[in-house]
Amino acid sequence: MALKLYGLPMSTNTTRAMICLHEKEVDFELVPVNVFSAEHKQPPFLSKNPFGLIPVLEDGDLTLFESRAITAYVAEKLKETGEDLIRHKDAKEAAVVKVWTEVESHYYDPAVSPIIYEYFVAPFEGKEPDKSVIDTNVEKLKKVLDVYEGRLSSSKYLAGDFYSLADLNHVSETHYFMQTPYASLINERPHVKAWWEDISSRPAFNKVVGGMTFGQSQE
Amino acid sequence: MALKLYGLPMSTNTTRAMICLHEKEVDFELVPVNVFSAEHKQPPFLSKNPFGLIPVLEDGDLTLFESRAITAYVAEKLKETGEDLIRHKDAKEAAVVKVWTEVESHYYDPAVSPIIYEYFVAPFEGKEPDKSVIDTNVEKLKKVLDVYEGRLSSSKYLAGDFYSLADLNHVSETHYFMQTPYASLINERPHVKAWWEDISSRPAFNKVVGGMTFGQSQE
Repeated sequence: MALKLYGLPMSTNTTRAMICLHEKEVDFELVPVNVFSAEHKQPPFLSKNPFGLIPVLEDGDLTLFESRAITAYVAEKLKETGEDLIRHKDAKEAAVVKVWTEVESHYYDPAVSPIIYEYFVAPFEGKEPDKSVIDTNVEKLKKVLDVYEGRLSSSKYLAGDFYSLADLNHVSETHYFMQTPYASLINERPHVKAWWEDISSRPAFNKVVGGMTFGQSQE
Repeated sequence: MALKLYGLPMSTNTTRAMICLHEKEVDFELVPVNVFSAEHKQPPFLSKNPFGLIPVLEDGDLTLFESRAITAYVAEKLKETGEDLIRHKDAKEAAVVKVWTEVESHYYDPAVSPIIYEYFVAPFEGKEPDKSVIDTNVEKLKKVLDVYEGRLSSSKYLAGDFYSLADLNHVSETHYFMQTPYASLINERPHVKAWWEDISSRPAFNKVVGGMTFGQSQE
């Protein structure tokens, strides 16, 4: 299998896909996309993803975009290899994995991403972080994490006592979030903190974390 | 199979699940949730969905929330019944269905939902619709629909020449959107218009559309 992933090792969405590929211990080629010259907004790349965003996965003649569709595809295609991220042998467990992947997508990400954007990306673009955006999303995130704290007090991971795609999809964005002053939101909730320490110490994440340098000094 | 769906027939998220159940021609019980008395924010309901939102599906001892996780579960469980919404016999088609369900979730819904909210829900809550929110999201939606127009000029449905979960997940919110003054965004794009006319004329949707009365006169 010759898998090609178009993206950047510092991008949360690219690393979401990379972590999944590493969990499956599958070889892939990372093809860099020069987002700073807007390569992803030009026709050759737009033919792969009409929305002009990274990452894109090519598997032979199949082209996929949207990081969560990519992780779901890789987890399904390689379900017998490495960690079973979708619990394919148990329909009920598989359904609960789907529920908590939707939770990441509709509650967690919409609160965490704007905080990361304002803290890391706005200064990079020469803008002042918008404190009101941060405050609004910190309040949203607290409510989400209160639910997580309850959930993780009765199961080790979000979908049950097994690591799954639902947890994996959180890792890349939470890594950057933990470098903001709002990391306390996670650290002050003991079950969420233990969960984060667990899912961020997996070998698959250790293989990508070195490339997640956005916001670090370029000296 | 004794399926129970907790929700309201006027809610877009509830009807998303209902349309899927009707596509599979499966019996289910719709259990009304009194959102006007905040029943969904009280402990009995919160034990089904800790986020306090409808719909919730109960299938025996399995409890699921998030409408898109519910449609994915129903489509998978009943993959041999009625329309094959996930293309389970073809891994590549199944992957493309996942891509376009993510597109609905991350591009279409985030643009359409605020427009529906401002147009229908804000007046119901005694507020003036926020014109700047509408304008911002109309601009976002135009870009999304330009991609859809291109896509639907080369395939009849979003994931290919077959109706799938990717299309189905759009139906309930688009029904309300088409009652706003911004329906022209769909009608002026011929392939999108033809797609909407097709997916909104399916028998499964006809079974729920009569209940989608939000915003209609209560006289």
